[in-house]
Amino acid sequence: MGFHRTDDGPLAVLTLDHGDLNLFDHGVFESFIDAVDALDADPPRALLLHASGRVVSAGVDVHEFDGLAPRDAAILWRRLIRAAQALEDLPCPTVFAAHGLCLTAAFEIALACDLLIAATSARFGLVETVVGLTPSMGGPQRLTERAGPARARQLVYTGELFDAQTLAEWGVVTQILPDDTFADDARAVALKLANGPTRAHAATKRLVRTAADHGVRAADALVPDVSAPLFDTEDLRGAVASFLKDGPGKASYSGL
Amino acid sequence: MGFHRTDDGPLAVLTLDHGDLNLFDHGVFESFIDAVDALDADPPRALLLHASGRVVSAGVDVHEFDGLAPRDAAILWRRLIRAAQALEDLPCPTVFAAHGLCLTAAFEIALACDLLIAATSARFGLVETVVGLTPSMGGPQRLTERAGPARARQLVYTGELFDAQTLAEWGVVTQILPDDTFADDARAVALKLANGPTRAHAATKRLVRTAADHGVRAADALVPDVSAPLFDTEDLRGAVASFLKDGPGKASYSGL
Amino acid sequence: MGFHRTDDGPLAVLTLDHGDLNLFDHGVFESFIDAVDALDADPPRALLLHASGRVVSAGVDVHEFDGLAPRDAAILWRRLIRAAQALEDLPCPTVFAAHGLCLTAAFEIALACDLLIAATSARFGLVETVVGLTPSMGGPQRLTERAGPARARQLVYTGELFDAQTLAEWGVVTQILPDDTFADDARAVALKLANGPTRAHAATKRLVRTAADHGVRAADALVPDVSAPLFDTEDLRGAVASFLKDGPGKASYSGL
Amino acid sequence: MGFHRTDDGPLAVLTLDHGDLNLFDHGVFESFIDAVDALDADPPRALLLHASGRVVSAGVDVHEFDGLAPRDAAILWRRLIRAAQALEDLPCPTVFAAHGLCLTAAFEIALACDLLIAATSARFGLVETVVGLTPSMGGPQRLTERAGPARARQLVYTGELFDAQTLAEWGVVTQILPDDTFADDARAVALKLANGPTRAHAATKRLVRTAADHGVRAADALVPDVSAPLFDTEDLRGAVASFLKDGPGKASYSGL
Amino acid sequence: MGFHRTDDGPLAVLTLDHGDLNLFDHGVFESFIDAVDALDADPPRALLLHASGRVVSAGVDVHEFDGLAPRDAAILWRRLIRAAQALEDLPCPTVFAAHGLCLTAAFEIALACDLLIAATSARFGLVETVVGLTPSMGGPQRLTERAGPARARQLVYTGELFDAQTLAEWGVVTQILPDDTFADDARAVALKLANGPTRAHAATKRLVRTAADHGVRAADALVPDVSAPLFDTEDLRGAVASFLKDGPGKASYSGL
Amino acid sequence: MGFHRTDDGPLAVLTLDHGDLNLFDHGVFESFIDAVDALDADPPRALLLHASGRVVSAGVDVHEFDGLAPRDAAILWRRLIRAAQALEDLPCPTVFAAHGLCLTAAFEIALACDLLIAATSARFGLVETVVGLTPSMGGPQRLTERAGPARARQLVYTGELFDAQTLAEWGVVTQILPDDTFADDARAVALKLANGPTRAHAATKRLVRTAADHGVRAADALVPDVSAPLFDTEDLRGAVASFLKDGPGKASYSGL
Repeated sequence: MGFHRTDDGPLAVLTLDHGDLNLFDHGVFESFIDAVDALDADPPRALLLHASGRVVSAGVDVHEFDGLAPRDAAILWRRLIRAAQALEDLPCPTVFAAHGLCLTAAFEIALACDLLIAATSARFGLVETVVGLTPSMGGPQRLTERAGPARARQLVYTGELFDAQTLAEWGVVTQILPDDTFADDARAVALKLANGPTRAHAATKRLVRTAADHGVRAADALVPDVSAPLFDTEDLRGAVASFLKDGPGKASYSGL
Repeated sequence: MGFHRTDDGPLAVLTLDHGDLNLFDHGVFESFIDAVDALDADPPRALLLHASGRVVSAGVDVHEFDGLAPRDAAILWRRLIRAAQALEDLPCPTVFAAHGLCLTAAFEIALACDLLIAATSARFGLVETVVGLTPSMGGPQRLTERAGPARARQLVYTGELFDAQTLAEWGVVTQILPDDTFADDARAVALKLANGPTRAHAATKRLVRTAADHGVRAADALVPDVSAPLFDTEDLRGAVASFLKDGPGKASYSGL
Repeated sequence: MGFHRTDDGPLAVLTLDHGDLNLFDHGVFESFIDAVDALDADPPRALLLHASGRVVSAGVDVHEFDGLAPRDAAILWRRLIRAAQALEDLPCPTVFAAHGLCLTAAFEIALACDLLIAATSARFGLVETVVGLTPSMGGPQRLTERAGPARARQLVYTGELFDAQTLAEWGVVTQILPDDTFADDARAVALKLANGPTRAHAATKRLVRTAADHGVRAADALVPDVSAPLFDTEDLRGAVASFLKDGPGKASYSGL
Repeated sequence: MGFHRTDDGPLAVLTLDHGDLNLFDHGVFESFIDAVDALDADPPRALLLHASGRVVSAGVDVHEFDGLAPRDAAILWRRLIRAAQALEDLPCPTVFAAHGLCLTAAFEIALACDLLIAATSARFGLVETVVGLTPSMGGPQRLTERAGPARARQLVYTGELFDAQTLAEWGVVTQILPDDTFADDARAVALKLANGPTRAHAATKRLVRTAADHGVRAADALVPDVSAPLFDTEDLRGAVASFLKDGPGKASYSGL
Repeated sequence: MGFHRTDDGPLAVLTLDHGDLNLFDHGVFESFIDAVDALDADPPRALLLHASGRVVSAGVDVHEFDGLAPRDAAILWRRLIRAAQALEDLPCPTVFAAHGLCLTAAFEIALACDLLIAATSARFGLVETVVGLTPSMGGPQRLTERAGPARARQLVYTGELFDAQTLAEWGVVTQILPDDTFADDARAVALKLANGPTRAHAATKRLVRTAADHGVRAADALVPDVSAPLFDTEDLRGAVASFLKDGPGKASYSGL
Repeated sequence: MGFHRTDDGPLAVLTLDHGDLNLFDHGVFESFIDAVDALDADPPRALLLHASGRVVSAGVDVHEFDGLAPRDAAILWRRLIRAAQALEDLPCPTVFAAHGLCLTAAFEIALACDLLIAATSARFGLVETVVGLTPSMGGPQRLTERAGPARARQLVYTGELFDAQTLAEWGVVTQILPDDTFADDARAVALKLANGPTRAHAATKRLVRTAADHGVRAADALVPDVSAPLFDTEDLRGAVASFLKDGPGKASYSGL
């Protein structure tokens, strides 16, 4: 129950499977923290996060909030935010695949992934306003960096559901795939990334994160740090040789 | 004349009413500063900013710029920017409703509000280029954080008018409502926010602003500060109880 | 060969002309650095950057990467990034006009320009993944500030081509013009900016850049610095007088 | 009572005079806000802030905190912080002269001034810990930017008093003058600044503030904005001519 | 072995005890991560970190670096940095007490604590240069925020030892206590903080960290968030009542 | 004349030699830009910057400012700031050795170096106030990051000279060496750094700069980028082996 991990070659796959609605309760939160810790200690070449069942998640089990003291809420959010950051900092591409309704904690975890692939009929919401709360696992801020502050406030203030198409227009969802073949198609996307030049992807990820956190010039300063070492990798050397011999697109990568 | 305030229960309503074109002259600027000061000293549960008349505003009365010394311009902009920041920092949702043409100072004030609701036929512009000036009440920077730097430069360099639809695609306008019933519909949106969980909305607003100003990680660090105290509010406790007893959407909020 | 400069009145025009594919090799990189140095030492009133030939550029000549040592790669990227920053900091509007396929280094240079005008059929890509590299002239970070981090990762991770329409929706391309008359139309846009109030444009540019780099409040603090001196310019004084006498749009500007 | 203003030629002098201990109560806070508003609307060439009586201030009248509701505390601090920022942003040198004991609110106001001159026997403290509070007018953060975070925590956590010598070693106090002639000597320092090149001082102030807020590179980008216009000032032109004719130190300044 | 925890009433005490030299090996690193995790999940009212034995630590066991692959080094540093951040973010005062020689990893952990108390004869160094490495647990950056970049480079480039007095002048060491009674005196300091107004201390800590990370204005915006809720605490209410009834210094605190 | 370069094994030495007072005129500025460009294109393992003659420099030849138009001043400062940044970004330790009086431009260049070694009798000043100017090559901002904003304002506002001892207490000067043997001693310091683990020093430098520019957490994120690749260097591997075999301090470094 909760999050469990399977591997598909170079791709780590983390699946949320927790009852009919994949509600987040204490156990799911702990399994999320544990799963991220394990990934952090031995990063894969790419990660796919998704859920089994009819929906991705109907959000947090509201019983968790019943009588929760502020001090304990602070401890809980601090630990979950830290796990979301560790997920966000994995040195490889991470893909969240949302096949259906995706609320609150699940959506916030999705926003800590590099890419968010949605099925055509998926819908998303941060509906904490319904219990007088603000989303506390990082959702408002990660919406802000993808869609700007006005849209982030709109989504959270109103507590409404937004469809995949709208969030793709906002830069939140990165790709929409048909419902029918969603699971396979999304996995194929992630698997292709897992078989890519892992260290180059990690460099790209660092440049993008640095720009989002500290601006373009901070990322500019980072270029020699993350790009120059690539010229010593087997992947770059092999791909350059392949390109010059056979043209583009023939290279294969080992992640080294 | 200028900005005057009326209240609609928990909602403060600020109306610009100043002649045919709602041009900004010295008196309007001063009434804006005064109105914001008063809101800052006793914040409502939500704010609606709009204008009466045919247009929102045709901008600044150009006579204000005639012979203005650089030293006095610096004083003027410094004071107006400070007022725009105080408006932006009000601890409650703020909504700007634009029913028609909305130029320069009025558009810049709109950009200091959380949400910007536009009538279908509304048009917007920062046309200071026509007098050899740059928009100086915060417009270029607030466009940048909503729509990115390239679109911000495009809008200001060209000095052209942009319709509501385009600005909605850019993330600047957050909602478009039909012309016919615009005033009532926009007020209903603001009133609903005013009746919402005010402290949760304020927490959301702080997370979004912090992310926009200092990045996602700064907002992450803020989560325990602004989210944990919510668990001691009547609004959260009541809404959790209501949710567990009657399901979602039945709670009402007092702002406490 | 490489970049060469021609002037069109107040408009500087920089043209990339280097063989069939305008591939970036050592000489092109050096001519780019030299051209930017010259512009930096004597800035025009606006800059148009474009390419001659069938495509804008097919990217970097991969031979440049063959056997390149990490230390030398670091030196190369450091110098090119510095040139991209100098281009980005020119105190006047800069326009990149892309009439066709625009890959890697050329696209990254385009992203260091204020505005990016594309022909309807133009396509763009950062395809360094094909050689196991990350784009190292500033592309990922400049995509991030225009389109958000998720789209930036999507574009770079996949290495796919994106058409002008998609990038316009993302806020990367600022304007699409028809293929047929593209060269003339794009030049007309740039020329109009060159004939505009240069110092006001420079002020706008600084506000936007400051907001993108350091947030809205940093730009707010800058307003008196860059806006107040405009009130001493011939351009503002003349345009105010013209506005009050003849109405808007009749003023002409000298850049002083 | 509270803060009252007198002028000494180009120097504005603000004096705190409020009973034996210059305790901050509601009226003093309001007079501070009003005084800063007036300075903001018509900045002098330099500002001297000091107090009359035996001490600078024994801090806040604790009755102000008795039964203060969190909501009202938030409003109070928000308004006072805004006033401290307006003081900090005055476009001229500002000097705080502390002749004796200087606690809490008074010390926090001192930290919003450019320079802090102390009498040999002056002592300083942020002693809010004695009432279970944290200093809320900006003290901890302004100590941090002058003395680093560890010293700031040390001073606030312990709630102890620190003498002028220690704070000078920390970079908090900028100059120590003898007790005997303190008032006259401190005024002479401020007066000399008031008679200096006001616009050059304002430029220096902006560079320093920008570096403190956004780092060295942000200030680097600001140099052309604030330095170039100085070459059009009477003060620079006159001083250059004076230097070339009569050598250094003979120029006088008008602030223009 | 490694770090083990004992409690002294409201004070958590973490002791490093690992052989003659308290060298950091794999087990010590893991015990550090575990100890911080436990504190994070149930924060005390203050934390004292110190070591038993003759020295604080002679640094890292160099065997750890022998044959370490870059990929594994990245994983190790990423996890250790995350633990250092969690330590740094504990919502209570943290005190590191260094009674003797304190090298590399131990010094870096000390720099993640709020206060650094040193015995008169203690010496400190980041001597990684001796193995061709840079300090990788956060030392150079935390030295920079306390002592400025030039001193940080001086200390790390040279790899020399610095005594307590010098580092106190630099703002790195916050207090020096005599060797003879060091252990007891340092514990008394920490215990006093543990018995203080814990939530006010946590608010101070957040203001200081925010200023160090994002500047004074970011901390200014935080004041209402962290200061206003204090007015609902038993500690503030009790201390205000005590002050008004019995004068300063008579209040006691429960941390609530 | 101007800056000329000699090499001392792995150490590049740049000497300012320009008449009796080493005044900065047009030619000296250009030679500075050229010298930095050359270093940037082929970085040494360390750099020593110093001056010949009686003084380091009496500052800028004031004739340069006579009749300088604001537009040309902006171009000049922009180019010089860019050169100062390139100097600051060299991927190796940089040492400025000041044997005597060191004013304005020379002091600002010194502040763009990693370490500033001063002779006992050296004195420093940013005296631009004497001509109604602010220091425009980066001095105020670099003083701010080393000594805090209050001291930076003090030094620039007053335009006074400060001795080496005072600036060492401020964290601006990093080391004081006796006058008599200054040139040799300073070179020995630089030479020792040049013979050190160059890539580890470069990593340290990046961590410190990142912390100064973007805060501790930004540098934390950088650790895996710059530290992990060191484990593949000959210098680290050799030094670890040497340490384990022969104890500390016996390793020699090649910079690879």
